[in-house]
Amino acid sequence: MDAAQLERLAAQIGDEILARLSGGAPRQPQPSIAGLIDHTLLRPDAQHGEIVELCREARQHGFASVCVNPYWVPLAAAQLAGSIVKVCTVVGFPLGATPTAIKMAEAEAAIRAGALEVDMVMNVGALRSGDPEAVKADIQSVAKICHSGGAILKVILETALLDDAQKAVACALAKMAGADFVKTSTGFAKSGATAHDVALMRSVVGPGMGVKASGGIRSLADLKAMTAAGASRIGASASVKIVEEAAGGSAAPAGGGY
Amino acid sequence: MDAAQLERLAAQIGDEILARLSGGAPRQPQPSIAGLIDHTLLRPDAQHGEIVELCREARQHGFASVCVNPYWVPLAAAQLAGSIVKVCTVVGFPLGATPTAIKMAEAEAAIRAGALEVDMVMNVGALRSGDPEAVKADIQSVAKICHSGGAILKVILETALLDDAQKAVACALAKMAGADFVKTSTGFAKSGATAHDVALMRSVVGPGMGVKASGGIRSLADLKAMTAAGASRIGASASVKIVEEAAGGSAAPAGGGY
Repeated sequence: MDAAQLERLAAQIGDEILARLSGGAPRQPQPSIAGLIDHTLLRPDAQHGEIVELCREARQHGFASVCVNPYWVPLAAAQLAGSIVKVCTVVGFPLGATPTAIKMAEAEAAIRAGALEVDMVMNVGALRSGDPEAVKADIQSVAKICHSGGAILKVILETALLDDAQKAVACALAKMAGADFVKTSTGFAKSGATAHDVALMRSVVGPGMGVKASGGIRSLADLKAMTAAGASRIGASASVKIVEEAAGGSAAPAGGGY
Repeated sequence: MDAAQLERLAAQIGDEILARLSGGAPRQPQPSIAGLIDHTLLRPDAQHGEIVELCREARQHGFASVCVNPYWVPLAAAQLAGSIVKVCTVVGFPLGATPTAIKMAEAEAAIRAGALEVDMVMNVGALRSGDPEAVKADIQSVAKICHSGGAILKVILETALLDDAQKAVACALAKMAGADFVKTSTGFAKSGATAHDVALMRSVVGPGMGVKASGGIRSLADLKAMTAAGASRIGASASVKIVEEAAGGSAAPAGGGY
């Protein structure tokens, strides 16, 4: 052990003691950074070779899933066969303004093609039109399809289009409708995840549900800000850069998301 | 007839004589400016009241159609019952990366709900992956659904994601697949319609097919640049401002698209 490593270890021990003295619970074993990340490529112009490479990276680093557009689910499922990395896809994406029957058909087809995680966009326009029943029924119908197919459902709020009260209502509706996660953003709106929104969402859904932060998470510091606020999953396309940063490796600047 | 009207008439006659002397064909009766425009509202946060207002404006000005997200088709169809304004909606929008079976189901549901025009996004990723057969089959399947339901199909290329050769190939594939129009843009990519792209698209599809220019068309001058380049339809959300400009009325600055 060299001096730098020793110094890092001493700092860790110091942190731990401080956390315990301040009344914090003893640290639970944490999942790896990579295991928190949905490795994401949703650009409409993504090509066959890029999907293959995305899957290779996900296997190598042990990401939770790859998140791809529905057209690419069969390819990703084939590439990831036999690995622990799941295939995640999107439904009603990114506008959320399609009929429930279509979102159900999309989820069903995606699960049949190999998806085990489905990220659907809720009906933002219905929520803003004061129609919470439509929003809840929409989510509930897709949740049933997902659960009967052995998949989990994440509900994207698109927080950039909502005020705090609307975000809170959307979280409650997603929970009532039986979704497994709420998720901040599509990555296609004018802004993405914020620590404020993640904390608000966590406060509404409680500890028993997942909260996924996505949109604009490009560094290890971004990821840590989100998990500190209550996120249990991270959507990112800069995932390889983030895990390399976590390993103390190279930290080349990541490209922006689509 | 006052002096200003007389002057305008004289100018028109002069233009006509010059056009004939320069070998141009005698002018055909032109559709009204409003009759060229799909009055468009595709923001994911659009509310019930905004869709109602969009339909009222379309009736008042005589736009070709209103273009709304699929969730709002039943409302728009009810609002426009008995008028000449059609309901247009979008399929596989705005990414184009959903399976053909889902695009077909979306088109079928939309037509059943009252849509007479369907704007689908082609599979950009498949085109860029060198799979023209997949692109053509995707369009062909949706075209069949549209035509058997009495609707027309416009194919959105998303020109911002393609080079000129890819744009030309996409136009040829849309024509081979039986689409009625090619269309430049979703309005959700980094750029929209250009006169260059419209002229290129017109040159590939010939005079017998429609070309719709959309994305960033916010003024009468923008519209005229597109029709001069060969566009036979215009998608715009600043439509009311454009027709008011054409009538010599107020020209308040239009808001940007989503």
